[in-house]
Amino acid sequence: MADYTIRRAQRDDVGAIVRMLADDQLGATRDDPRDLDPYLRAFDEIDADPNQYLVVVVSDGEPVGTLQLTIIPGLARRGALRGQIEAVRIHADHRGSGLGADLVRWAIDESRRRGCALVQLTSDVSRTDAHRFYERIGFVPSHTGFKLKF
Amino acid sequence: MADYTIRRAQRDDVGAIVRMLADDQLGATRDDPRDLDPYLRAFDEIDADPNQYLVVVVSDGEPVGTLQLTIIPGLARRGALRGQIEAVRIHADHRGSGLGADLVRWAIDESRRRGCALVQLTSDVSRTDAHRFYERIGFVPSHTGFKLKF
Repeated sequence: MADYTIRRAQRDDVGAIVRMLADDQLGATRDDPRDLDPYLRAFDEIDADPNQYLVVVVSDGEPVGTLQLTIIPGLARRGALRGQIEAVRIHADHRGSGLGADLVRWAIDESRRRGCALVQLTSDVSRTDAHRFYERIGFVPSHTGFKLKF
Repeated sequence: MADYTIRRAQRDDVGAIVRMLADDQLGATRDDPRDLDPYLRAFDEIDADPNQYLVVVVSDGEPVGTLQLTIIPGLARRGALRGQIEAVRIHADHRGSGLGADLVRWAIDESRRRGCALVQLTSDVSRTDAHRFYERIGFVPSHTGFKLKF
């Protein structure tokens, strides 16, 4: 990890992040880096919210990995905070390097630092490689994730 | 639904909500309504956050159902907002009445009103009755939900 830096994303990183979102078996049909306006609006909302951390891993000045961590307060589990990870992507040229595990471990450590009782995420049932990856890191596939799209 | 009102939870509702969280096959070991202090602190944090809606269904002046809706901004799906439902509980005396479906539909409608592109939730794999309930409402079990507890 000597060559990588994990830091909060800046507005200038949005193009690189969206290219990673779109370069994905599922994201290819959902995301399009040619029109960044909706993404920049979303970035501003994320960046203004102290419970949102959009982060990038930077190598040679370029974002090569990203995830979003959301801190969610709740009453359950004696008023526990939970950390939630979404939109994990690693640039194709940097996969298999351990970078993804380091990035997810950053989110776990940040959640612990913020006082969360747990970290959660969902992964499409078709992403079987990702499931093995999360289990190696210590996640337990204890839940079914439901979505209802409009 | 003529006898029920769905409204934002108030501080005075916290005791009734925690009793519902604890009266549950999984929550019984995790929640304890005898010490409300940590729950009241969490309530204040939820109540101050415009992206959190802790709601109750009230019947005869008493909360008999609850859920928490969180609106999460993100870059994926062209900067889509997503609604996330957590901590759905219906008082034992009011189950099977359609109240749970009405409450979840309230969260779906509110998410749509806020401009979300989807609504998501996870449910413990042991809650098979709940899974059928969510599928009847239109949710698709497309994801695996992973948790890492500290």
